Amino acid sequence: MNSGVAGLTAGELGRAYRDGQLSPAEAVGLLATRIEETGPVLGAFAALRLDQAIDEARQRSDELARGEDRGPLHGIPLGVKELFDVAGLPTCYGSAVFGSRVPDTDASAVARLRAAGAVVVGSTRSHEFGWGITSQHPTLGGVRNPWDLSRVPGGSSGGSAAAVAAGLVPLAIGTDTGGSVRIPAAFCGVIGFKPTFGRIGRRGAMPLAPSLDHVGVLARDARDAALCAGAMTGDPGECVAGQPAAVRLRFLHPPDSELEELDSDYRFALTRTLAVLSDAGATLHPYPPAGGPARAAFGPIQLAEAYHHHSEILRTYPVLAAAYGEDVRQRLVLGARVTLREYVNATYERQRLTRRIERNLDGVDAMISPVSSRGPASVREPDVVVHRGRPVALRDVVLGHTVPQNLSGLPAIAICVGVDRAGLPIGVQLTGARGRDEALVLLAQRVVELLAAAGGQGFTAPTLPTT
Amino acid sequence: MNSGVAGLTAGELGRAYRDGQLSPAEAVGLLATRIEETGPVLGAFAALRLDQAIDEARQRSDELARGEDRGPLHGIPLGVKELFDVAGLPTCYGSAVFGSRVPDTDASAVARLRAAGAVVVGSTRSHEFGWGITSQHPTLGGVRNPWDLSRVPGGSSGGSAAAVAAGLVPLAIGTDTGGSVRIPAAFCGVIGFKPTFGRIGRRGAMPLAPSLDHVGVLARDARDAALCAGAMTGDPGECVAGQPAAVRLRFLHPPDSELEELDSDYRFALTRTLAVLSDAGATLHPYPPAGGPARAAFGPIQLAEAYHHHSEILRTYPVLAAAYGEDVRQRLVLGARVTLREYVNATYERQRLTRRIERNLDGVDAMISPVSSRGPASVREPDVVVHRGRPVALRDVVLGHTVPQNLSGLPAIAICVGVDRAGLPIGVQLTGARGRDEALVLLAQRVVELLAAAGGQGFTAPTLPTT
Repeated sequence: MNSGVAGLTAGELGRAYRDGQLSPAEAVGLLATRIEETGPVLGAFAALRLDQAIDEARQRSDELARGEDRGPLHGIPLGVKELFDVAGLPTCYGSAVFGSRVPDTDASAVARLRAAGAVVVGSTRSHEFGWGITSQHPTLGGVRNPWDLSRVPGGSSGGSAAAVAAGLVPLAIGTDTGGSVRIPAAFCGVIGFKPTFGRIGRRGAMPLAPSLDHVGVLARDARDAALCAGAMTGDPGECVAGQPAAVRLRFLHPPDSELEELDSDYRFALTRTLAVLSDAGATLHPYPPAGGPARAAFGPIQLAEAYHHHSEILRTYPVLAAAYGEDVRQRLVLGARVTLREYVNATYERQRLTRRIERNLDGVDAMISPVSSRGPASVREPDVVVHRGRPVALRDVVLGHTVPQNLSGLPAIAICVGVDRAGLPIGVQLTGARGRDEALVLLAQRVVELLAAAGGQGFTAPTLPTT
Repeated sequence: MNSGVAGLTAGELGRAYRDGQLSPAEAVGLLATRIEETGPVLGAFAALRLDQAIDEARQRSDELARGEDRGPLHGIPLGVKELFDVAGLPTCYGSAVFGSRVPDTDASAVARLRAAGAVVVGSTRSHEFGWGITSQHPTLGGVRNPWDLSRVPGGSSGGSAAAVAAGLVPLAIGTDTGGSVRIPAAFCGVIGFKPTFGRIGRRGAMPLAPSLDHVGVLARDARDAALCAGAMTGDPGECVAGQPAAVRLRFLHPPDSELEELDSDYRFALTRTLAVLSDAGATLHPYPPAGGPARAAFGPIQLAEAYHHHSEILRTYPVLAAAYGEDVRQRLVLGARVTLREYVNATYERQRLTRRIERNLDGVDAMISPVSSRGPASVREPDVVVHRGRPVALRDVVLGHTVPQNLSGLPAIAICVGVDRAGLPIGVQLTGARGRDEALVLLAQRVVELLAAAGGQGFTAPTLPTT
């Protein structure tokens, strides 16, 4: 039963609860054992609340037995990135700066999920404030990629992605300021969904760069992601109901010049995805090459906004400055140097980029693009790597494809479309029209189904060594 | 024939051209006479090119005679706000700073309109750089409201609005950074249409605050406005084609607390409009009171962006500083003081406001709201006026209702819904969903028709004294 529960989606768990095959208390109990066994190896969780989770799951079980059904998230185990407040659960935001803080109340997103019946098993590890570059947690060490424990899971929602991929929870929430949900989702072979900007409230979540910050979901299939996002908006139906129109298959895809920048396995997986869609009758058109403006606009905005947030802390408690990780401290220095003129110019570039993507999306259902140009780094890999024969900053190779959706606020979802020669998952993302989150998720689900029918595979939890 | 041509819409002119009742050359010739006769009284134009316009209109006439039809704007006389470049036409942007400049090429919006057959008769007067507060042109004096020559027409596209209202041209273009198309349209009793942000290119137009700047249209009916906006997007059908779905009548309207802030005539006109719509079967719901955040976000963004633009000029030519009008110079000083933190916080507020309006608009077709709380000031009125018994800045009473659409980039259209006790027109605006410009214009047209059927009146040109 153990690996069986680990492989289930939230939808499958919910059906098992209602068929009487399994109770929420049993499911959480089995997962708690798996979490404890694999914990030291994987490092996905920052803090656990397994006893409370089992208690809450018993209450959810009793409710179901009495016919009190809160809906599809009733009794579903959930991981919460440590940037969100969970009442009573200590958090340090992945940083040594504040020490451990115990929030009084849940973040608004967490409160909504718990009201919908979800059971929080613990907080998942994040890069420092969601902003650090190194994946080493200042006090806990790094999260590992469950598909290859010598690799990183991607960040900054790496703990959430690893926990879902390893079958420790069927659902986890994260934050995405420049790709922090989609990149670890792709690296760990799970769904990573970033709804339209503003759709999910951020009260009680540690900000990074508020004009770019999104709440997102890590899940094992797109329907689960939609349910979880919908519950966080306050209307459980909002992300799955909406227009139930037939799913159409009209896509934009990367031009050759962008495909050439990808590692060969990544290029192959994306090309194969397009071939499968074409065979299914999809219409496919390349989008115009974007050039480099997205990163140019992202840099000043993210740096300035993050600096402004942390400079309040530093002004009040200058002694804390020494406790920031070296990577974050370096970026604070850069953030302090951003001028109003640079920020204003980045705002103009952001508007142009948004307009360009929205115009490109006119008349199609989604844009397909890479999540990253290559797979996850080794935990020992230096910051500068050789990519396609040239030395480049690892961050540039990984982050280049995900920031346009943060700048524009358009919804995007990462899905797994294949594996590389080392057996690690490869993701692509679909980007949709603003506010059309439901249509995007339905489309992603359809693409996953078409790939599976063409010889891909559904979600399987990797086999992890246990302690 | 003179006053007849003055009263025609672009659509009516086009039909008269094709029925052989009138040629473009005749129409431009008749309007040229009217422009010259009323020019010194009204002051709508900054620079004229009547001889060239008549020449071009002859070419358009010859083309039509040969069966070469450029479409609905073929041979239509057009006014162009002096912030747009028109090749060969001197412009000073309403300012004494640069003296008179003669552009080599047309602004992109102007070029598209001319390619569609429109005939530019001259440039219309603007407040200094679209930013000045006083309506006095530094070299030319002020534009007057054609309905009452002792009043201002509103700004900053006051010349365009006055020219269209006085029957000097059926169409004119303007710019709208905080209401500069919609306010003069409302004060002069014409249509003022600001499409979705970014829909119309701004190359060759003097910027004010680029993240807020929109190109817009002044017209005598909504269909004309849509045609003109569509031609400027490069796709003449874009603003009128699109979804030809039946026009629905689901509106948001101001809550009582906002209605109470309006002058009594303005409140009555808005209330009557809602009653007419209700009688026509419309569903009407009040939107939640907005509080004051829109102005708070607008201030720093507009001031900082405008300052950044002009500071380049001042750095290069410090001697020019003395040539700015006193009102603009004061605002440059304020702009120089805006900090990055204030701008960033305004960006967050802007995003919250946008999200709030878009959420409010979900499930309705448009929001109805005032364009201003009162009518146009006397040309001699001081900056501080008594409004509803209290002294307030005139600018606050006028500008408070129009900036949310600039901050959010949502399309908005001002229409005339009545007259006040002094016989001056009263406008309201409809705000629609992003990118749904066509639907908004069709809806505005329908509202105008319903009001006319209920006993309103169509467009009539005011009777102007001539020199």
